[in-house]
Amino acid sequence: MWKILRNTLIGHPLPSDEASKHRLGNLSALAVFASDALSSVAYATEEILLVLILAGPFYLYLSLPISGAIVLLLFIIATSYRQTIRAYPTGGGAYTVAKENLGTLMGLIAGASLLIDYVLTVAVSVAAGIAAITSAVPSLYEHRVALALAGVGVIATGNLRGVKESGHLFAGPAYGFILAMGLLIIVGFFRYLTGDPPSPHLTPQVFEPLSAFLILRAFSSGCAALTGVEAISNGVTAFQKPEAENANRVLRWLAMILACLFGGITFLSWLYRIVPDEKETAISQLARVILGDGISYGFVQMATCAILILAANTSFADFPRLASRMARDSFLPRQLQQLGDRLVFSNGIWLLAGAASFLLVLFSAKTHLLIPLYAVGVFLSFTLSQTGMVVHHLKVKEPFWQKNLLINLLGATITAVVLIVILVAKFTHGAWIVTILIPLFVAWFYAVRDHYVVAAQQLTIDMAVPPRKLKHTVIVPVVSIHRGVLSALEYAKSLSSNVRAVTVALDEATAKSLQAQWRKWASDVPLVVLRTPYRSLVEPLKQYIKEVDAQDPEDLITVVIPSFVPAKWWHNFLHNQSSMLLGAAFRGMRNVVVTSVRFHFDR
Amino acid sequence: MWKILRNTLIGHPLPSDEASKHRLGNLSALAVFASDALSSVAYATEEILLVLILAGPFYLYLSLPISGAIVLLLFIIATSYRQTIRAYPTGGGAYTVAKENLGTLMGLIAGASLLIDYVLTVAVSVAAGIAAITSAVPSLYEHRVALALAGVGVIATGNLRGVKESGHLFAGPAYGFILAMGLLIIVGFFRYLTGDPPSPHLTPQVFEPLSAFLILRAFSSGCAALTGVEAISNGVTAFQKPEAENANRVLRWLAMILACLFGGITFLSWLYRIVPDEKETAISQLARVILGDGISYGFVQMATCAILILAANTSFADFPRLASRMARDSFLPRQLQQLGDRLVFSNGIWLLAGAASFLLVLFSAKTHLLIPLYAVGVFLSFTLSQTGMVVHHLKVKEPFWQKNLLINLLGATITAVVLIVILVAKFTHGAWIVTILIPLFVAWFYAVRDHYVVAAQQLTIDMAVPPRKLKHTVIVPVVSIHRGVLSALEYAKSLSSNVRAVTVALDEATAKSLQAQWRKWASDVPLVVLRTPYRSLVEPLKQYIKEVDAQDPEDLITVVIPSFVPAKWWHNFLHNQSSMLLGAAFRGMRNVVVTSVRFHFDR
Repeated sequence: MWKILRNTLIGHPLPSDEASKHRLGNLSALAVFASDALSSVAYATEEILLVLILAGPFYLYLSLPISGAIVLLLFIIATSYRQTIRAYPTGGGAYTVAKENLGTLMGLIAGASLLIDYVLTVAVSVAAGIAAITSAVPSLYEHRVALALAGVGVIATGNLRGVKESGHLFAGPAYGFILAMGLLIIVGFFRYLTGDPPSPHLTPQVFEPLSAFLILRAFSSGCAALTGVEAISNGVTAFQKPEAENANRVLRWLAMILACLFGGITFLSWLYRIVPDEKETAISQLARVILGDGISYGFVQMATCAILILAANTSFADFPRLASRMARDSFLPRQLQQLGDRLVFSNGIWLLAGAASFLLVLFSAKTHLLIPLYAVGVFLSFTLSQTGMVVHHLKVKEPFWQKNLLINLLGATITAVVLIVILVAKFTHGAWIVTILIPLFVAWFYAVRDHYVVAAQQLTIDMAVPPRKLKHTVIVPVVSIHRGVLSALEYAKSLSSNVRAVTVALDEATAKSLQAQWRKWASDVPLVVLRTPYRSLVEPLKQYIKEVDAQDPEDLITVVIPSFVPAKWWHNFLHNQSSMLLGAAFRGMRNVVVTSVRFHFDR
Repeated sequence: MWKILRNTLIGHPLPSDEASKHRLGNLSALAVFASDALSSVAYATEEILLVLILAGPFYLYLSLPISGAIVLLLFIIATSYRQTIRAYPTGGGAYTVAKENLGTLMGLIAGASLLIDYVLTVAVSVAAGIAAITSAVPSLYEHRVALALAGVGVIATGNLRGVKESGHLFAGPAYGFILAMGLLIIVGFFRYLTGDPPSPHLTPQVFEPLSAFLILRAFSSGCAALTGVEAISNGVTAFQKPEAENANRVLRWLAMILACLFGGITFLSWLYRIVPDEKETAISQLARVILGDGISYGFVQMATCAILILAANTSFADFPRLASRMARDSFLPRQLQQLGDRLVFSNGIWLLAGAASFLLVLFSAKTHLLIPLYAVGVFLSFTLSQTGMVVHHLKVKEPFWQKNLLINLLGATITAVVLIVILVAKFTHGAWIVTILIPLFVAWFYAVRDHYVVAAQQLTIDMAVPPRKLKHTVIVPVVSIHRGVLSALEYAKSLSSNVRAVTVALDEATAKSLQAQWRKWASDVPLVVLRTPYRSLVEPLKQYIKEVDAQDPEDLITVVIPSFVPAKWWHNFLHNQSSMLLGAAFRGMRNVVVTSVRFHFDR
C-alpha cells in the first residue's frame, strides 16, 4: 500500500545510471534556482520604505539611491559568484570556498549559516505566500498553519520526484511572476507618462530625525533582495554540461532580471507615492493603482503568492546538496549522502521539510517573528565566501587575478559591513538566536566528525583474529507455551545443547499452570521461573542474563525470542510486540546475541 | 534519562500487591467520578435557554418545568444505575449490562458509544475549560490548542501516577466548584428576596412559534446535564470495600448535588431574567449580577473552568477500565489489559490522551464543532443499559423485581425518546458521524475477536512435533569489512559450516575493493556479490535469499546481521540503522531467522 502511494506521489525508482540524464536545462534551472532571489522583489522595496518612513514621507525618495546601491551590490556579488563558479565547477557554495581557502572552521561557520538560512527561507517564504492568500480570502486565516504545512508538503513531494520534474513543475510560477512584474512596470510607466499625476504625500506627523544609521538600516533591510543569489553556485552540478558555463549564463540572466524588477518596482513606488501600509503590501498597492481591481490585479497577486511559496523550492534544491557535501566530509550524518529511489537526496529533503514545518508550527506561520533571524546567515556566508575568493586569488594567481581580487575584496568588505549593520539593527529582535545557533552547530559538526573518526579506529582490523571455539548458552524467554514457542525451542536446541527457557511469573497460579504444560510438551528443556513484585518482564530477564553471563564469561549468550508475524498488518496492533521490546532491551548488553524466530500466521 | 523523567512525573513503579491498597475513599471517588456530571451544570441551563429563546423571552419560564423533568429523569437514571451497581458489583457499565442481557452485539454497540463519548468528553471539556480562560484573558486565544493539549497532558500525567493520587489531585477543584455554585445559589436567593426586583425582559423581536418539537429540543439539549451519571457504575472496582455500597452512596450524593445545583441555577436564571448571550455564559451573567465584578466572581469563573477541564478526568478514570474489560473479552487489543508500573491501565490512558489531542488539533479546540457529536453516545448507552436491566429483572426476578422493572422500563423509554430527539435535532450538525462510527467500531471489535480466535487455533499444540535435525544455511549481509563484520562471521561459523557473506554492489569499484580486502581478512567465507541498477540494498538481498531458499526447502536460513551499538545515544543518528531495516525487511519471509550480532563501541 505504501509502495503504491509512494509510486503515485513520487514516481517509480530510477536506475543509478540515469543520474547524469536528470540535469536541468537553462530555462528550468532559472526557474528552480531563481525563485528565492526573485521572490524578494515582492518585499524588498517595502522593507526599505518601512525604515525610511520613520523619518517621514519626504525622505522616501532616498529609496532610489539606496536601491541603486543594492543593485550595484547585486552585480558585485553576482560577478564574484561567477568567478566562484569558474573556480569551483563541481559546485562551490560558501561552504566549499570558505573551507578550502580559510580553513575548516570558517567552512563550517558558512555551512551552518547556510543550513539555517535554507530552513528559514522555506519557513518565511511559505508563510508569506500563505499570508498573501489569506489576505485575499480572510476566512482562510484560521487555517494558515495547515495551509503552510500543505505548501511545504507539496514542494517536498515535487522535490522527492526528482530534480528535472521539479524544474517542470515550478517553471510556470517563476516565469509567471517575471511576466506579472514586467507588465506591472511597463504599464505603470506608460500610465504615469500619459495619465494624471498621482496625489501628493500626506502631511508629515511626528518623525525621527534622518540619521546616517537610519539610511544604513534602510539599505540593510533592502539587502533582503540579495538573498538567494548564491543558490546557483551551490547547485552547479544540477546543470547540463558544460555545467560551469551554463550556470554562469543563468546567473547573469538572474542578476539582470532581478535588477530590472527590483529597480523598476522601487522607482514606480516613488513615482506613485506609495507609502508602506500594515494592511496592504507595496506591490498590492501599486498593482491596484496601476491595474485597478480587475483580473490583472488578481494575476499579479497570485503570481506573487506563487513565487513566494516557490522561493522555498530553491532551498529544497540546495539544502540537500549542501548537507550531502558536508556529510561526505563527515560533518553531518552519513545518511544525508544517500541518493534516494528518484536520484535525489531524499533524507535531506525530509530533514528540511521537517525542520521548516517545526518552525511554521512553533511560530504559527507568522512571518514577522521569523524575518529578523533571516538575513544574518546569508550575509555571513557571502562574507566568508568572498573572503575565501580573495585568498584563492592570492594563492592561485590566475590571469587578471588583481582585478578579480579587487572585486572580491570590495564584495567581502561591503557584505561584511551589511552583516554588521543587520546584526546591530536586528540583534534584540531575534538575530541573537542565530549568533547562538551557529556556534552550537559548528561544535556539533566537529562532534560528528570525531565520532566517525573514533568509530573507524575501533572498527579497523589491525590483525587477524585467532579463531576460537565459541561456547553457546541459549536462553528462550517465554510467557506461555504454543507452536511459536516450540519452533523457537527447536531452533535453540539446534544451536547448542545448553538451552534453557525462562519465564517471569507475575502470579503463582500462572506459573504453576505453565510448569504443568511445560512438563507435557517441552520436558527436554529446563524452565526457569523468575519472580517479580512488579509487572515488567524486561528487568528480571536482564538481571537473569547478567547472572548467567557472570557465571561463565567465556560463554556467548544467544537469546532466542519467539515472535509472531501476523497475516494482516493491522494485526500487529493486537499483539504486545514484546519481542521488539526485548530486542531493544538487550541491545546494550555485551556478549549477548539476539535472535528472533518468527511464527507466521496463515490468516 | 527517560527513567528519571518518568519517575519525577509519574512516580516510582509500585509492586503488584499494592493493587487493593490503591482504592478511592468516598470523598475522593466523588471528586474523580463526579466532575463530568457536575461540569454540565456549567452549560446545561444555557442549552435549554438557547432553544427556548427562539420562541421569545416570554417562554423562558418553560425552563422550569423542563429542568424539573430533567431532574426527574436524573433520579430515574440514578435509581436504575443503583440497581445496576447492586446487580454488577464488580463494575457494570452499559457494556457489561447490555452484553449479558441483550447479547454481544448490543454490548458492543454500548461499548462503542461509550468509548466515543469518553474521547469526546475529554476534547469538549478541555476545550470549553480553555475557552473559559481565553474569554478572561483574550490574548491567550491564539494559543488555545497548545493550552488544551497541555491540559490533556496534565490530566493524563495525573492519571498515570495512579488512581489514588489522582483522587487527591482533583478533589480541590471538584469541591471548589460545588462550593462556588452553592454560594452563588444561596447569595442569589438572598439578594433576590432582599433587594430590588431585576429589570424585565426586553421587548420581543421576530420569533419562531412555540411548538412541541421546540420544547422537546429544549429538553433534549438540557439532557446534557445527565452525561457522566453512568461513570460511577463503570468504576465500581475503584472503590474501597464494600465496593457496591460505597459506589451507591456516592451515586446518591452525586444525584442530590447535581439536582440542587442544576435546579438552583435554572431557577435563579429565571428569577434574574437571564437571556442567553453569545459572548457571555449564563453562569457568568448570573455571577456578575449577583456577586458583582469582584473576587467572588473570579472565584466562580475559575471554579467553572477547573471543573470543565477536570470533567475530562472522569473519562480518564473510565475509558481505560472499559477498554481493559473489552480487551479481556478479546474485542480490543490485549495491551489495553496490562496494568502499568503505577497499577493503572497506562495504555488506555495513552490511547485516550492521543485520541482527544487529535480531535483538539483537528477542530482547533473549538467546542461548537464537537458538541453535536457529543450526547448521542451517552443516551444510546443509557437506553441499552436500562433495556438490559429490564431483561435482567425478567430473568433473575429478585425481590421487588416488578417495581424495579417498571423504573428501568420508564428510564429506557424516556432515554430512547431523548436519543431519537437528539438524533433528529442534531443529525445534520454532526450526529451522523457518530451513527457511522459506531457500526464501524462494532465491526472492528468483531474482527479483533476473530483474529484472536484464529490466532489461538493456529498456536494450539495438538500433538508433539517429532524432533528433526535442522540444517542451517547462514547468510551474513555486509557492506564493508571491519571488526563488527568479523565478529558476525565468527558467530555465523559457529552455527554452521554453510556460511556465506553477501554484498550488494552499487558500483564496480567498491565491489572490487571489498573483494580484495575480503581475500585478506576473511578468505574462509565465500563472498557473494549482487549487482543492482538501483540504490536499495534490501530488494536484491531478499531476492537472493528467496533463491537460496528455493534451492533447498529443507534448509533453515539464518541471516546474521552485523550491527553497531554506539557509546552515546545520539550517535545512533549518525549510522544508517540498516540492521534494523534489514530485520524488518526479512520479517515477512518464512523459513528465515534473523540474528543481530552487535559490535559495541567503547566511545
